[in-house]
Amino acid sequence: MRILGLIVEYNPFHNGHIYHIQKAKSLAQFDYTIAIMSSSFVQRGEPAIIDKWKRSQLAIEFGVDLVIELPFVYTCQSADYFAKGAIDLLAAIGVTDICFGSEDGRISTFVDIAQAIFQHQDIYNEYVQKAMKKGLRYADACNQALQYIMNKEIKTPNDLLGLSYVKEIIFHQYPITSHCFPRTNAYHGLNLQTIASASAIRNAIRNKQDFSHSLPHADLYHHCDLFQLEDFFPYLQYQICTSSLQELKSYHMVDEGLENLLYKHIQSCSSMEEFINQLSSKRYTRPRISRMLIHILMKNTKNDIHNAMHVDYLRVLAMNQKGRQYLSTIKKTCPYSLITNLPKYHHPALEIELKATRLLSLLSSHPQALIQEEFSHIPLIQS
Amino acid sequence: MRILGLIVEYNPFHNGHIYHIQKAKSLAQFDYTIAIMSSSFVQRGEPAIIDKWKRSQLAIEFGVDLVIELPFVYTCQSADYFAKGAIDLLAAIGVTDICFGSEDGRISTFVDIAQAIFQHQDIYNEYVQKAMKKGLRYADACNQALQYIMNKEIKTPNDLLGLSYVKEIIFHQYPITSHCFPRTNAYHGLNLQTIASASAIRNAIRNKQDFSHSLPHADLYHHCDLFQLEDFFPYLQYQICTSSLQELKSYHMVDEGLENLLYKHIQSCSSMEEFINQLSSKRYTRPRISRMLIHILMKNTKNDIHNAMHVDYLRVLAMNQKGRQYLSTIKKTCPYSLITNLPKYHHPALEIELKATRLLSLLSSHPQALIQEEFSHIPLIQS
Repeated sequence: MRILGLIVEYNPFHNGHIYHIQKAKSLAQFDYTIAIMSSSFVQRGEPAIIDKWKRSQLAIEFGVDLVIELPFVYTCQSADYFAKGAIDLLAAIGVTDICFGSEDGRISTFVDIAQAIFQHQDIYNEYVQKAMKKGLRYADACNQALQYIMNKEIKTPNDLLGLSYVKEIIFHQYPITSHCFPRTNAYHGLNLQTIASASAIRNAIRNKQDFSHSLPHADLYHHCDLFQLEDFFPYLQYQICTSSLQELKSYHMVDEGLENLLYKHIQSCSSMEEFINQLSSKRYTRPRISRMLIHILMKNTKNDIHNAMHVDYLRVLAMNQKGRQYLSTIKKTCPYSLITNLPKYHHPALEIELKATRLLSLLSSHPQALIQEEFSHIPLIQS
Repeated sequence: MRILGLIVEYNPFHNGHIYHIQKAKSLAQFDYTIAIMSSSFVQRGEPAIIDKWKRSQLAIEFGVDLVIELPFVYTCQSADYFAKGAIDLLAAIGVTDICFGSEDGRISTFVDIAQAIFQHQDIYNEYVQKAMKKGLRYADACNQALQYIMNKEIKTPNDLLGLSYVKEIIFHQYPITSHCFPRTNAYHGLNLQTIASASAIRNAIRNKQDFSHSLPHADLYHHCDLFQLEDFFPYLQYQICTSSLQELKSYHMVDEGLENLLYKHIQSCSSMEEFINQLSSKRYTRPRISRMLIHILMKNTKNDIHNAMHVDYLRVLAMNQKGRQYLSTIKKTCPYSLITNLPKYHHPALEIELKATRLLSLLSSHPQALIQEEFSHIPLIQS
């Protein structure tokens, strides 16, 4: 049995994603296609623009059989943790292949590099640590270490993420084959072409421009809640103002004295955008800062995240008949709990997940309905 | 030396307060008049409608020599703690007399009752505890106990507060003489007479009615920030939504399963008013619920409040030349620290005080200026 795994955010689900699903499925005769999808917040440190239920239903409609939740504890993290969470869960559910889009486009690049790092782990790690002590941020330190051990570097965020996937597979010796295909130029475009970038589409949605040719069911976005980090600014301001330095310091990602910067700038800024600009620097990228602010909004302490990191469940967000069939096939052998009903299972990561939904609900026109969906049975969608 | 102490909130400072100051000062030849005034939040569970600096300056203008801060840890509490804080601090600063307005109007009523409770403490306390176990709220239980030991009862909130003052004096054997005078009918009025009730004036200020004949410097209220509990509702909703039941339970005054009620009603209510209505009951009065909500807004845990309760400082909010002279007289003998400069003294109650100001600042048009005032030197006002 060959099972294709896709690691996705679908923020929002657009024509490029349809292209990706089709392209990946054409690689081989797969029996099932499973996507692991970021839940309420995405890796760039933002709420997903529409909720996870709608995004996962779109995925089913366009060729995925089963959508699994990538928990908040993995999505609102650096690339390495994001990749670790995604690959570990895909391995647990039995995928045999993964496929990701990349700028480089050759899977051998990623496999060679991952293997080199695996073989020279000690030297690599030592180099990374030294470089970080010199003030380099983690991604740059990794790249320098890579140049040192094999004279190569990975330049774009997508390729860095791809490398993280392949590294996780090789380090754990998971029986998973990696594939990648080059992203088309159109896929990067800033304009609203048929296949446009997610950033361009998000901008168009926010600015109420016409984006109907860039994604399916464009009308959906006129009728549903759109979530934006900016709208959380009053809550963030309140949260920081009522926290002591000690409390701020206890939150996940508030490291190296960042609590002082938070205090210093919170009163003088009048928007999230301005605040993020004040806090970001060469050492702290905008996504890194944004993720930290989300953890503060959620009051996630370092301890909370530490205790929630070992996820041992697979939560279904949506499925079609084939997806349901696959679930019943693996029910007895899968080492992880398969969750289709929230109240029956308890895990610190699920508590954080529910908190993320409650946070989103503050921006929703139907807050109770949004929370209620967490506790409803998973929809079975006819694709 | 005779020193008059007044326990005040001045929310807002109106003609009735001028009458109170004059009436109290006419009782005897006092050398100094000292007011202890609620800081940012008042005992009925609301922010003071204008900030503590403006209120204390008005007090000086109308005959008080020195205004001392009654810290948040005492104001946002039941009558007993409020009274304890006020009397202990007034005793520490050396007042010889206090004077309060009351419905009953005879000081002997309060002294007799306080002495009876003091003499029969064990019976009284036992009765109160039993009555509370039966579901009575504290004030009603006290009144029943009182009827039991001496066939008397205290009916109005102002008289209950007056009794708490006198009890505190008698229990500690403070060398302080209590006085009271009957509140005039006009003082209670719901209409905006020359001497109108604070509630009527607050309503008029909020509704932009004419209130110019009810308080001095009416124009002030058109130019300064007006603070209302209602405006904190989005923050409260956010705070409750991102807290676990365990966290909610840890906050001061969240007792006896109230955390479940908070969770139950927070999403379905669209205003503070509606939320307070849902939570209040025969057992939990509106002020009791409002105070609890303020502690949640401040994230004050039971521990935080416990650790801050033993205030050992007297913080000056405003003074005239006479007030300054008095301070220098007692500087060497006063067992409490006299604070005119915030950064030089540390105490958990002062940290909470600063947090209260930061919370208020979220509703202010000049948030940084409001916070900055905490750290400025105390104004010396020419009266």
